[in-house]
Amino acid sequence: MYTLGFDIGGTKTMVGVADESGTVLAMRRFETRGQLGPKQALDRMKEAARQVVREVGVSVDAIGIGCGGPLDRKSGTLYTVPNLPGWEGICLTAELGNEFGVPAYLENDANAAAMGEHLFGAGKGVDDFVFMIVGTGIGGGIIANGRIYRGFGENAGEIGHHKIMPDGPPCPCGDRGCLEALASGTSIARIARERLAAKPESVLWQWISSPEEVTAQLVARAASEGDEFASGVWHECMYHLGIGIANVVNILNPRLVILGGGVTKAGSMLFEPVRRVVRERAMPALAADVEVVPAKNGDLVGLMGAFAVAIENVSCRA
Amino acid sequence: MYTLGFDIGGTKTMVGVADESGTVLAMRRFETRGQLGPKQALDRMKEAARQVVREVGVSVDAIGIGCGGPLDRKSGTLYTVPNLPGWEGICLTAELGNEFGVPAYLENDANAAAMGEHLFGAGKGVDDFVFMIVGTGIGGGIIANGRIYRGFGENAGEIGHHKIMPDGPPCPCGDRGCLEALASGTSIARIARERLAAKPESVLWQWISSPEEVTAQLVARAASEGDEFASGVWHECMYHLGIGIANVVNILNPRLVILGGGVTKAGSMLFEPVRRVVRERAMPALAADVEVVPAKNGDLVGLMGAFAVAIENVSCRA
Repeated sequence: MYTLGFDIGGTKTMVGVADESGTVLAMRRFETRGQLGPKQALDRMKEAARQVVREVGVSVDAIGIGCGGPLDRKSGTLYTVPNLPGWEGICLTAELGNEFGVPAYLENDANAAAMGEHLFGAGKGVDDFVFMIVGTGIGGGIIANGRIYRGFGENAGEIGHHKIMPDGPPCPCGDRGCLEALASGTSIARIARERLAAKPESVLWQWISSPEEVTAQLVARAASEGDEFASGVWHECMYHLGIGIANVVNILNPRLVILGGGVTKAGSMLFEPVRRVVRERAMPALAADVEVVPAKNGDLVGLMGAFAVAIENVSCRA
Repeated sequence: MYTLGFDIGGTKTMVGVADESGTVLAMRRFETRGQLGPKQALDRMKEAARQVVREVGVSVDAIGIGCGGPLDRKSGTLYTVPNLPGWEGICLTAELGNEFGVPAYLENDANAAAMGEHLFGAGKGVDDFVFMIVGTGIGGGIIANGRIYRGFGENAGEIGHHKIMPDGPPCPCGDRGCLEALASGTSIARIARERLAAKPESVLWQWISSPEEVTAQLVARAASEGDEFASGVWHECMYHLGIGIANVVNILNPRLVILGGGVTKAGSMLFEPVRRVVRERAMPALAADVEVVPAKNGDLVGLMGAFAVAIENVSCRA
């Protein structure tokens, strides 16, 4: 069985072909250019897909699509997606499925990534885990009893929007004090930026010409070089990330919490403090059950997820 | 099919016989007297059970037992249960199953209550809901895809111990800022008690001779009579309860959140503010999916749960 996967992000799209074991046989990565509108952007996707299929020289059996939500999985249709203006109502499964004459399946990106880690990554063989993507925002996918758990309205897993500081800072979701508002890459940068004026001694000033240029990556780098200000911001955010994960552990008692996304590239700078907070703040029996580990699919976490969406749907396990 | 149910609490125990539809045919309620040690207390339970079985005049097919944890469901054995000193290692399923020569099944009380609401209560026919008991503490049980969700180590559902104020007040679990430390009956009373000295004008002083006598029930009553101090404490706690429920809604996207336990006897004084907070603070699509409703099994929530434990296990759905 060969699957064609589409990982459609607001900025980048990946298209690839994989076999059933998740070995990627060919892939392309390109700008989504969603602002061109669905017609042109979809034509680019179809063209890239035809190329990878030709390159591999097989016929694909199913298509999996991961895309930022909100979306209607069952009809394969997007609602109003912030990063894809004008795409609402577009039926991605019909567009892409018809192009190749095979069934196509859509899933929101965080669930797809969780399914990819389950079939091919750090969650292989593990029936109960939580996947979290910590990047621009914080998204989540729940694998329960070996299956993706979607909840009543298929929107479960909004872990980034559980509140750990009810009167805390505003969140892009419109609420306040969400985990995402305290520990996403965007939030790490925002918190540093807000406080930087009062810290002329920070090494960050040597790397930027204005506070607007501060990124989570720079904060991590400055912290790793011993900058006191950056280290304070970084550890405050890691503390909140750890609290958020401890909460999920107490509610779901997972075997693993798998972390992916750009912020996790900080490696042990992230995992060490987060694991310590989880150990200290989750209930002892539940803390003992869980390991907090990096996603294995790395930069391909979305594309591997798209392959998993195809496989799980074809085998009726999704 | 007739089931014998045991709802073993730290203070009270209920024993009853029900038919498959959950109609209670006979029951007894008595002091657990766990401090007498397991031998004597179990003898009292067995005697009460023999009485109700005799009274109904049927032979029971299975036994369900709900008990406060921590416990090992599979072996039917208690670990160190705070309210049952000396009971660790007692195999309740063997003790009670052997007495009646039928299979017996053990479940922690919050999961059992969730299962009871699923089979016989507010969650009947609903595949995805969260049950929360708000009383002395705050416990939870998760029904996912129509089944109790236990997680990797069978301890999922510790909703009362997710933190909504990471540096908040101490919680009986040993951590700080947990939902239980901010919104349980015990916490409502504690918060009122701590602040009462500075509020000589509160009507609460007319009902008590020392702050130690303040209970959540008295706070609710004073609030309902317009006492400004009590009303402030009550609404602060309801705000936190609402935030905790909004968090669970965002993580699990349930169709229902079913609330049981002593504090819910406050009725609309509880449900109105909590529903408002959930509507305002859960993500709109998820808030629209959920209703926050009272448990239907009321004071029998634990006993009905015990019947459900028996039925679900016999039919291999547990």
